[in-house]
Amino acid sequence: MNQDWLSAFLKPKLQRKLTENLSRQLYRLLKELIRHGRLQAGSAIPASRQLAEELKLGRNTVLAAYEQLSAEGYLESRHGSGTYVCQAFAATRAPSALRAPRRPLSRRGASLHEASRLPHNKMGAFIPGQPDLALFPIEQWQKCLSRSQRTAPQEWMHYQREGGLPALRHALAEYLFLTRSVQCKPEQILITSGSQAGLALIAKLLADAGDAVWLEEPGYAGAQAAMLESGLISHPIAVDEEGMALPSRAPTPRLIYATPAHQYPTGAVMSLSRRVAWLNLARQHDCWIIEDDYDGEFCHSANPLAALQSLDQDNRVIYLGTFSKVMFPALKLGYLVLPPELVEPFRQCQARLHGETHYLQQAALADFIERGHFAHHIRAMREIYARRQQLLRHAVQSLLGDSLPLSGGGAGMHLLASLPKHFDEWELQLAAAQQGLWLRPLARHYQSAPDRNGLVLGYAGVPDERILPATQTLAQLLETRLK
Amino acid sequence: MNQDWLSAFLKPKLQRKLTENLSRQLYRLLKELIRHGRLQAGSAIPASRQLAEELKLGRNTVLAAYEQLSAEGYLESRHGSGTYVCQAFAATRAPSALRAPRRPLSRRGASLHEASRLPHNKMGAFIPGQPDLALFPIEQWQKCLSRSQRTAPQEWMHYQREGGLPALRHALAEYLFLTRSVQCKPEQILITSGSQAGLALIAKLLADAGDAVWLEEPGYAGAQAAMLESGLISHPIAVDEEGMALPSRAPTPRLIYATPAHQYPTGAVMSLSRRVAWLNLARQHDCWIIEDDYDGEFCHSANPLAALQSLDQDNRVIYLGTFSKVMFPALKLGYLVLPPELVEPFRQCQARLHGETHYLQQAALADFIERGHFAHHIRAMREIYARRQQLLRHAVQSLLGDSLPLSGGGAGMHLLASLPKHFDEWELQLAAAQQGLWLRPLARHYQSAPDRNGLVLGYAGVPDERILPATQTLAQLLETRLK
Repeated sequence: MNQDWLSAFLKPKLQRKLTENLSRQLYRLLKELIRHGRLQAGSAIPASRQLAEELKLGRNTVLAAYEQLSAEGYLESRHGSGTYVCQAFAATRAPSALRAPRRPLSRRGASLHEASRLPHNKMGAFIPGQPDLALFPIEQWQKCLSRSQRTAPQEWMHYQREGGLPALRHALAEYLFLTRSVQCKPEQILITSGSQAGLALIAKLLADAGDAVWLEEPGYAGAQAAMLESGLISHPIAVDEEGMALPSRAPTPRLIYATPAHQYPTGAVMSLSRRVAWLNLARQHDCWIIEDDYDGEFCHSANPLAALQSLDQDNRVIYLGTFSKVMFPALKLGYLVLPPELVEPFRQCQARLHGETHYLQQAALADFIERGHFAHHIRAMREIYARRQQLLRHAVQSLLGDSLPLSGGGAGMHLLASLPKHFDEWELQLAAAQQGLWLRPLARHYQSAPDRNGLVLGYAGVPDERILPATQTLAQLLETRLK
Repeated sequence: MNQDWLSAFLKPKLQRKLTENLSRQLYRLLKELIRHGRLQAGSAIPASRQLAEELKLGRNTVLAAYEQLSAEGYLESRHGSGTYVCQAFAATRAPSALRAPRRPLSRRGASLHEASRLPHNKMGAFIPGQPDLALFPIEQWQKCLSRSQRTAPQEWMHYQREGGLPALRHALAEYLFLTRSVQCKPEQILITSGSQAGLALIAKLLADAGDAVWLEEPGYAGAQAAMLESGLISHPIAVDEEGMALPSRAPTPRLIYATPAHQYPTGAVMSLSRRVAWLNLARQHDCWIIEDDYDGEFCHSANPLAALQSLDQDNRVIYLGTFSKVMFPALKLGYLVLPPELVEPFRQCQARLHGETHYLQQAALADFIERGHFAHHIRAMREIYARRQQLLRHAVQSLLGDSLPLSGGGAGMHLLASLPKHFDEWELQLAAAQQGLWLRPLARHYQSAPDRNGLVLGYAGVPDERILPATQTLAQLLETRLK
């Protein structure tokens, strides 16, 4: 099918000045054309080289858009004959014109969809938040699972509503006290199906639609999504080297979300005086603080500060943790440490709204902790991740000198690399992806216009021997771009 | 300030046998003393050498505790003059006791808490929605799980975002087509962590806070909770013997929630003409229909109607199913069959907001289906549940005659027993519970004032030989109350 009209159609719509880069714009426009049937199933689309010339774009820009569309199933390449609009997709279209609601997603749904553009799912350098799963003691975990399966009482096949298996909550309370100075009774712990579920529960039970929530900027996109999903209004609060900074003015919040141990993604550790100031401010506003301690287990400095929760005399801090990083993501287990008066409503509402996760897995995890595998694995990984951070620091220092300053390595699994203002992180991301290097622009963590540029470099999931080669690729990419 | 009492206070509390090392114990004890004001801001603490001697500890043990307390800001060293309790810290202490927010739950949270009063968690006669887990083929399921564990690729330990394991979606598409005439490609299926999660996703992505949703009255409390959680306004729509009735007036809805196959809890089967009328009305209002087929697998009549979804020419029906009843509740797996244009936003938003359930379980389930265990189990249970329904009907007929009319047994796991108007169901429920009989008042399923009285009698989870004795207890309770 002749697609001569295509570049004439696209050209006026591509805008070089938008914050959305050209490749992303092209991807979006093509997707719309396919979804509305303007580009029909089975029809050929122009070769990337040809379209690039017609639109006066770099060929990589077009290639990146095509690759994204292929990854999402809109396009398929046929060897030697070019790229086509996918049959599979078109086949799902109803024979007659679609008559689904004219506005399929709600305004909230459209915002959530926009906020849910997930970073790609590949593994490798330098994806943040990715534990090294090859080093997870899978045999020991499977033994715990098998034991749990053999001994599980039949009633565990029913819905549960205790707020989590008591054995797991006991093990966890002890662990949190010893490692993070978190003060709680096992009853105050609510086992959730991941920290995202915990955030959603907090947002719904403690705030009404339209209430203000303060979020760190830059910050964790998942927290933003949970607040959006629950109808809260996010207010970005700047972060400095002492962590989340006290704002001069912002609407009175109902919730404050913070990552004091290791700010995500800058890595700033919140100073004690800042912690005290936040607790005082929360008291003044009579609001709650959510303390997300997402990677506190991997502290690389000698004396980690105790959790904010342990300083709180008012019972207004809710401590949030996850097993995604210390165990593995698909386990989907997290927990809240709740002030006593919230325990019962949270427990009941979780049972009603989300349901508790299978006690079989929780029992296996309690067993895994009690046998010492958990503490052993964390110690081992802390050492390995610390070494990988050093390897990355050395590689960057030797290859890039001071042109790529690194910061935020006091804990965790990533470093923040600073780039000059007005650096095009998105273009770098695309170029890097072509070479199998996955870079996360700092801009992804901003709600408003970013005030600085950078990359969030995850090192935890990168094998030792891959760090230098990956940094070499990064250095080559930066060489021309940093001049 | 003189701290002579300190070592006398500390000595008996330090225990050499604890798993917590001595330095950690000392740190914790000192911190408590500071936080409770026993060691006051600005006061000097003994030199590490002195305290070590007094407590008979190594000096490094004391030093490590002091260092940790300094790092956390509890202590500060002043050169040449010793170590002091930090001034900065004193500020965090609240002079009075607890000062958690005055209004702990939000308005939404309070409503959700109210709506989450869960029915009790016991097993036995006559709890609705309870499958007989003693008859579940647990060995075969565990074999599927073990196989899945042995063969699971490592990447399944990461977050997934395909909308569910393709093998499970394929198996399910075929199953739904064969048994429920649901028309869909595997790509249209989204595997959720239970039907509650599916409902929450629909409410959020397809409606905004304040939008109207129509719910059956009486109806499923879980659907009401999901709508409330998402800020929608529920409008109760009456149910008659043909299912959900078309209302004469109600605010234009964004969503309509219905259980056409077997209305919950009345058991009414929606007639074909009613189905067509609802599809037309949905078109007229340009809104979505949620078809919850919560127990369609256990159809006890010869010719079940095809799913509403299969009649829909407009792509505006979302079909909702669950494995809680055909497998077991704690599995927490459900699914949506989505119109094509919703597939991609739902998939992305689920991955971002809830996360996908572990593919290990999904693979085990796909295996369980492919090996025929699933269909075999459903056939076996359908027969058993049909028999139990007959046993219950006979028992009621012989013991209570026509004074307790039963209805709604065309499918599923429960019958509706009608009681006279103004009968006090709640009093009966309490009296029955005293005798180990669990009765669910129909009134629990109403948002507004109930227009009839009744009991939802679940029979599926009651062993054959327990049905007559349980009905005898019920008959005794009713004897005096029905006069």
